[in-house]
Amino acid sequence: MNLLNEMGKKACTAKYHLQNLSTEKKNEVLKNVARGLVSNAQRILHANEKDMENGRKNGMSAGMLDRLCLNFQRIEAMADGLLQVAQLPDCIGEVMETSARPNGLEIVKVRVPMGVIGIIYEARPNVTVDAFGLCFKTSNAVILKGGSDALYSNIEIVAVIREVLEHCQISPDAIQLIEDTNRATTVEFMRLKEYVDLLIPRGSARLIQSVVENSTIPVIETGTGNCHIYVDKDADLCMAAQIVYNAKTQRIGVCNACESLVVHEEVREAFLPALEAVLAEKKVELRGDDRAGEVLTNWIPATEEDYATEYLDYILSIKTVDSLEEAIAHINHNNTMHSDCIVTENMQTAEEFLNQVDSACVYWNASTRFTDGFEFGFGAEIGISTQKLHARGPMGLKELTSYKYKIYGNGQVRK
Amino acid sequence: MNLLNEMGKKACTAKYHLQNLSTEKKNEVLKNVARGLVSNAQRILHANEKDMENGRKNGMSAGMLDRLCLNFQRIEAMADGLLQVAQLPDCIGEVMETSARPNGLEIVKVRVPMGVIGIIYEARPNVTVDAFGLCFKTSNAVILKGGSDALYSNIEIVAVIREVLEHCQISPDAIQLIEDTNRATTVEFMRLKEYVDLLIPRGSARLIQSVVENSTIPVIETGTGNCHIYVDKDADLCMAAQIVYNAKTQRIGVCNACESLVVHEEVREAFLPALEAVLAEKKVELRGDDRAGEVLTNWIPATEEDYATEYLDYILSIKTVDSLEEAIAHINHNNTMHSDCIVTENMQTAEEFLNQVDSACVYWNASTRFTDGFEFGFGAEIGISTQKLHARGPMGLKELTSYKYKIYGNGQVRK
Repeated sequence: MNLLNEMGKKACTAKYHLQNLSTEKKNEVLKNVARGLVSNAQRILHANEKDMENGRKNGMSAGMLDRLCLNFQRIEAMADGLLQVAQLPDCIGEVMETSARPNGLEIVKVRVPMGVIGIIYEARPNVTVDAFGLCFKTSNAVILKGGSDALYSNIEIVAVIREVLEHCQISPDAIQLIEDTNRATTVEFMRLKEYVDLLIPRGSARLIQSVVENSTIPVIETGTGNCHIYVDKDADLCMAAQIVYNAKTQRIGVCNACESLVVHEEVREAFLPALEAVLAEKKVELRGDDRAGEVLTNWIPATEEDYATEYLDYILSIKTVDSLEEAIAHINHNNTMHSDCIVTENMQTAEEFLNQVDSACVYWNASTRFTDGFEFGFGAEIGISTQKLHARGPMGLKELTSYKYKIYGNGQVRK
Repeated sequence: MNLLNEMGKKACTAKYHLQNLSTEKKNEVLKNVARGLVSNAQRILHANEKDMENGRKNGMSAGMLDRLCLNFQRIEAMADGLLQVAQLPDCIGEVMETSARPNGLEIVKVRVPMGVIGIIYEARPNVTVDAFGLCFKTSNAVILKGGSDALYSNIEIVAVIREVLEHCQISPDAIQLIEDTNRATTVEFMRLKEYVDLLIPRGSARLIQSVVENSTIPVIETGTGNCHIYVDKDADLCMAAQIVYNAKTQRIGVCNACESLVVHEEVREAFLPALEAVLAEKKVELRGDDRAGEVLTNWIPATEEDYATEYLDYILSIKTVDSLEEAIAHINHNNTMHSDCIVTENMQTAEEFLNQVDSACVYWNASTRFTDGFEFGFGAEIGISTQKLHARGPMGLKELTSYKYKIYGNGQVRK
């Protein structure tokens, strides 16, 4: 508790220092940190080996071990990420709006850093570098709470970054890591409202839920994606099969993967058997309603819970509907406001769907897998917001900023 | 609990209905509600008399009774407010950004309603009408939890609004009032995350604190304002006295009133006695540090707590500093990120202050009393945000909206 307060104070001191840095200086520092990570790769790999050993001892799955594992190429990739962030435009200080009032006041709305950002995340140590890069570029101080599985890796990565910052005459408290992996400390961190302006959880639905429950700091929820594809009666069924195949199988463990198919009764018979054949390649399990089952070979009945589940696996739920309205109602009832898609050749139907479905990203004839900061052209991504406050959908650099009003007067008083 | 869930569901159904309304229809409805309030004034005044009676019985202060009291003029003023909102442009549906990606995807960022907004407030029944008008204009459904002191007034106002909505073929659940004044119900409301997209508390610091502590719904904190005016060594002292006088005394019970004066050592002797003479008119109590006291006639010593206090009264704390840096540090330590001002003739000093002070509104040579949606030209105001997420400073109609991405493809899949 006392330690966290201390960290909060240091981050606040750092934030005032960071907000004054020029774009050139920030980019130079990012490049230096990239070089520092590569030239200290051995130290980092050594620490990572300790995490890997613990992981193996604790029976971590092969998939998890792979996410945890660092090698020289992966460290180079993290460094490359920083170089890319250095190339992006700096939005801090940007004038967003100006207005001159009748009383002579001039009001200027300018983009400013958020201040201090807290990030709570799991497993992958590359998030440590990513988060630093995006926060530093936007002149924010960051306090990180990584997963205990990656503790040694994170400690070493943060140590290297802090060393480079000091060498560049930047306050090393621009990045701080909470090393205490106690749950009570994490909860305490979520209540460090006096010092932290924004808290971003990245990880499992359970982690995010815990942050929403406990945090007094404003939170941006990220990541849970129960994404739907609705195949309309006027769909190009060949395109529909390609889109569903891509959104379901191109990468299964990600939030923008398709989890549920909604199909119009009129194309059910023509579409589902064809789709089943395509998805069989990847052994996708189909869980459908009775009408879907009538035209499928291998399937099991879907429960209401299935329709609300983000599988992150080779499983697809299927729901048959009789109308666009029913499709929209089903999706709005079950989705997580992440990404949903309609496949249709009918423009009016498409517009109705795009307007009525309440999600961050609504697609017409394209895979939900495009919900991603890089695919959107932001050049970076800190996560995908599934809430409506502040940021929605992919979050890039601008989403890590706030604004302030500067008001220029010459003695105006209120009447 | 069950009742709240029911209300949440109804609000969600209403929100889909509201998002489809044309601007013309919304404006027509607002005008009808305005007429309805005036023509049902007797009913509302009758209910208000019950609240007033209870207030008098419970020993409510004269000031509070005045805030609670309705009369025909006040009802007309509430109706006028709705007519003004009807005149404002409708920002829903506005295209905020578009981009064409190399793969042919077209991404369109459009402004959409927040969905369901919850507002928890105290005392004044005019907030009920205000909140409805702003939420309705932005196609949001609203669930209100007013203060128990105004319960009968609020019930009647909401009943009138719902009757007009029904008459206009609009879902009356566009506005719902929680009539149960139990604290447990209020806390339950703060956790109605499944249905409510945004919660705005309006009222005392204690109310806001309780919402921040308990809510799982994203919150916008409003209202607490420990506003500072810094009189620099290069200030026009005559202008400075006018600005402090205005910001301190023009209206004392508001969040943008000045609570603390910071004065540079070099002008302390020349400025403070002159200011004391001006403020004596309004019998403002001065609480200063020793150096301020040296040149004041009537004063008491200020404690550290004084510097952190929003008095909302005829009291001003005074701090002497030796430099701009010290002034900025003192303000950033004690302010509530609401509104702070510098009085100086030195442009460079002013810019440094405006850049470094971490507040929603930073003023150069003007009264802090201008932090207000109407003074900013927004035409409306739902509150003043003192957080950095989503909205900062005065919140108008746009601050009650979110956005979504519509993505137009022709079969794109991710590689």
